[in-house]
Amino acid sequence: MRKFSMTLKSDEFYLKAEQLIAAGRFIDSKGWVPATSGNFSARLADGNIAITVSGRHKGRLQTDDIMLIDPQGHSLDGKKPSAETLLHTSIYRRYPDVQAVLHPHSVNATLTARLFQNEIVLEDYELLKALPGIDTHESRIVVPIFANDQDIPRLAAEVEHYLDAHGDIHGYIIAGHGFYTWGASVDDALRHLEALEFLFDIEIRLHGVKRL
Amino acid sequence: MRKFSMTLKSDEFYLKAEQLIAAGRFIDSKGWVPATSGNFSARLADGNIAITVSGRHKGRLQTDDIMLIDPQGHSLDGKKPSAETLLHTSIYRRYPDVQAVLHPHSVNATLTARLFQNEIVLEDYELLKALPGIDTHESRIVVPIFANDQDIPRLAAEVEHYLDAHGDIHGYIIAGHGFYTWGASVDDALRHLEALEFLFDIEIRLHGVKRL
Amino acid sequence: MRKFSMTLKSDEFYLKAEQLIAAGRFIDSKGWVPATSGNFSARLADGNIAITVSGRHKGRLQTDDIMLIDPQGHSLDGKKPSAETLLHTSIYRRYPDVQAVLHPHSVNATLTARLFQNEIVLEDYELLKALPGIDTHESRIVVPIFANDQDIPRLAAEVEHYLDAHGDIHGYIIAGHGFYTWGASVDDALRHLEALEFLFDIEIRLHGVKRL
Amino acid sequence: MRKFSMTLKSDEFYLKAEQLIAAGRFIDSKGWVPATSGNFSARLADGNIAITVSGRHKGRLQTDDIMLIDPQGHSLDGKKPSAETLLHTSIYRRYPDVQAVLHPHSVNATLTARLFQNEIVLEDYELLKALPGIDTHESRIVVPIFANDQDIPRLAAEVEHYLDAHGDIHGYIIAGHGFYTWGASVDDALRHLEALEFLFDIEIRLHGVKRL
Repeated sequence: MRKFSMTLKSDEFYLKAEQLIAAGRFIDSKGWVPATSGNFSARLADGNIAITVSGRHKGRLQTDDIMLIDPQGHSLDGKKPSAETLLHTSIYRRYPDVQAVLHPHSVNATLTARLFQNEIVLEDYELLKALPGIDTHESRIVVPIFANDQDIPRLAAEVEHYLDAHGDIHGYIIAGHGFYTWGASVDDALRHLEALEFLFDIEIRLHGVKRL
Repeated sequence: MRKFSMTLKSDEFYLKAEQLIAAGRFIDSKGWVPATSGNFSARLADGNIAITVSGRHKGRLQTDDIMLIDPQGHSLDGKKPSAETLLHTSIYRRYPDVQAVLHPHSVNATLTARLFQNEIVLEDYELLKALPGIDTHESRIVVPIFANDQDIPRLAAEVEHYLDAHGDIHGYIIAGHGFYTWGASVDDALRHLEALEFLFDIEIRLHGVKRL
Repeated sequence: MRKFSMTLKSDEFYLKAEQLIAAGRFIDSKGWVPATSGNFSARLADGNIAITVSGRHKGRLQTDDIMLIDPQGHSLDGKKPSAETLLHTSIYRRYPDVQAVLHPHSVNATLTARLFQNEIVLEDYELLKALPGIDTHESRIVVPIFANDQDIPRLAAEVEHYLDAHGDIHGYIIAGHGFYTWGASVDDALRHLEALEFLFDIEIRLHGVKRL
Repeated sequence: MRKFSMTLKSDEFYLKAEQLIAAGRFIDSKGWVPATSGNFSARLADGNIAITVSGRHKGRLQTDDIMLIDPQGHSLDGKKPSAETLLHTSIYRRYPDVQAVLHPHSVNATLTARLFQNEIVLEDYELLKALPGIDTHESRIVVPIFANDQDIPRLAAEVEHYLDAHGDIHGYIIAGHGFYTWGASVDDALRHLEALEFLFDIEIRLHGVKRL
C-alpha cells in the first residue's frame, strides 16, 4: 500500500499554490470559472506539478485545494486531481519552458467554439504582442478548436497530433468546455489568458456585425 | 393567540442563515437579485426551513432578515415570509435530499422566458456536469418555463403537475419573474445556479446569432 | 451681502448626506454615473434639500460634496448646486411623499431614448412590484422620454406639463442625458432605480431581437 | 557612461506616481488595460514626465513601475519607458495645459476602430459636457482613428499632421491598439476617458441596431 507523507511538500510548492489561488480569484472575478469548472497547475523545479484538486470552486481555493502530482499525472499526496490532468502533463512534456497551465471556462471561449468552426484566427491586434515571440500587430495566430471528449487520453492524443502537425501554438479551445493556455510562469500564463479572452470577445462581437 | 419565542432558534438555524446571507452577497454581485427581488431558503434537520423575509434586498441581508417557517410554510417566529414560500416548501416535500432552494431574478432568466417558448434545452456542454447525476457533456436537460401567476398556490400546483408528468428537473423559470434551482446544500444550489446562468447566457447569445 | 453659517447644518443633514454618498458608491459600481454625470438629493424635515454639488464624481462623494438648498433651489451654504436642481425641486413640490430624487446617467437610459420614441412601456414583469402601488406583474407603466434641453426651467416646465396631463409616473428619461426616479426615502428611490434599469436592459435587448 | 541618481525624484514625482497607480487600478477595474497593455503619464512642474515602465500590468502598478523621462522622452533613471513614449511627449509639447496623458486599450476602442472608418462622430450627448470647452449637448466632436504602426516616430508624425490640419481634439484611437486622451490633471484625463468610453459603448451598440 502506498503511503503519502505530509512532509513531502516544499516551500516552492506552497509558493506556487499561493500563485494558483490568487490566479483563481482573478479569473473568477472575470466570470471565467463558473461553478466548479476550470483547473490550474504550475510545475516545480523537480518536475512535479502543483495542480487544483477536482471539484473545487476556482475562485475560492484554499491551500488544501492544491495537490501534488508527478510528471505522469499520478497523485503524490493521495488527493484526486482534475479529470483533465493529462492535458496539463502533456503540455509540460512538450514545452520545457512552460511552468504554468491555466484552463478557464468562459462564456467567450464557449461561444467561440460555437461560432467558428475548427479554429479562430487572430490578426492585426496590438495585444498579440502580449504573447511570447510576437513583436508586431502584423501577426496572425491560430487557436485550434477541438471537439469535446470525456475520454481524456484520447483528447490529449488529438491535441498532441495537432501540435505534431502544426507546431507551436499559444492555446487551444475544447468545444463546450473552455480554453487552455500556458506560460513560463503563472503571471505569464495569466497575461496570455487575459489577452486571448479580450481578443475572443472582440471577434465574437464582430462576428455578429458581419452577419448583419 | 400564538406566541413566538426568541429562544426557539438553534445554532443550526444561525449557521444556515449565515450561508443564505453569504449566498445573497454572491448572487447580488452578479446582478441576479435587483431591487428586493429573489428569495432563498435552507432546510434544517428537524424539517423546518430558514427563509428570507419578504421585501429585503438580497445582497444586503442581515441575520434578522432570515426567518423560520414550518414545512407547510407557516411562520414560526411571527415574521412574514416571501409570497413565494409555497414554491420552496413544495420542492422540499418532493425531494428529500434537497436542503436549499435559491430563487434569483436575473436578466438572463427573464430574457430566456421571452426568447424560448415553454422550455429551454441545454445540451453538449461540459458545464452540465456541475448538475447532480450528469457525468458527460453528451447530456440533454430541459428547464421548463411557466407563465407567471400571482396566485402562488395555483402556480405551485402547476409546477407539481409538470413534475408528476416529467420527472426530476434541475430548475425552472417563471416568465417575467426569475429562476428556481436547488441542491443538497446551499453550496450545491449555488453551483447549480452559477452553471445554469452561464448556460442561459450562452443560449441567449446564440439565439441572436441564429436569427441573423 | 448674504452670509452663510457653517452651523446651520443639522444632524439630519449629515445623515442624508451619508445616504446620498453611499447611494453614489452603489450607483457608480453599476457604471451608471460615468465622469461627473448624475446628481442626487434628499429632502429634510424642514423642507430644505440636501443635494450634490455641481461637477463632482458621484461614485467618490465626500460630505463636503453635499450642499443645502431651499425648496426653490437657492443655495443655503454658498456652494453651487447641480445645473439640474430645478428638476429635483419640482418633483418635491409635486409629490409631498417623495423624500429622495436620484438622477443617474446610464448606457441603458441613453440607449432607451435612442431606440424608443417618446416613451418606453414596461409590462408583465414581476419586478414592477418594486414600484409603489403595484402589486401584480399584470401591470403596465409608461416612462416618458423628453428631449434634452440646456434651458432647465423650460425642461422642468415640459415635465410639469406632462405630469399635469398624464398623472403620476415613476420616473422619466431625458434623451442623451439620463434618467430620473424618486421615492419616499433614499433606499426606496434606489430600489426603483435598480428595478427600472433592469427593465430597460431587458427591453433594449429584446428590441434588438425583434428587429432581426 | 551616464549615471542615474536615486535622489533625483521629488515629492512631486511620487505624488504623480501615486495618481497614476490609482488611475491604473480604476481603469483596470473597468477592463480597459488587459494583459500589460496601456500606458499612462503625468507632467511635472519642471517639464519632465512621470510615465509607466514598459511591460507592467497597469492595474497592479507599484511605485517602482513609474519612471522619469525628459520632455524628449529620454529615460532619466535608467528604466525603459513604454514603446509609445513619443505619443505622450508630442501631446505635452503641443498642449501646454495638458498635464496627464492616458492610453487604455479597451474592447470598445478596438471595436470602434473596426466598425467606423477614419473617425467616430459623437454628438447630441449631455456627457460631452465632461470635455473641456463644451457646455451644451448640442455639440459635435470627432475622434480620429489612425492605422496602427510599430514605427512610433512615424505614427507620432501622422498624429501631428492631423492635428496641424484639424486643430484641437479630445482624444484619438489607434486601430487594433487602443485610445489616447489627456487633460489638465490625472483626474481630468480620467473624466475624459470615462466619458469617451461611455459614448463609444453607446455608438457601438447603436451601430448594431442601425444595421438590422
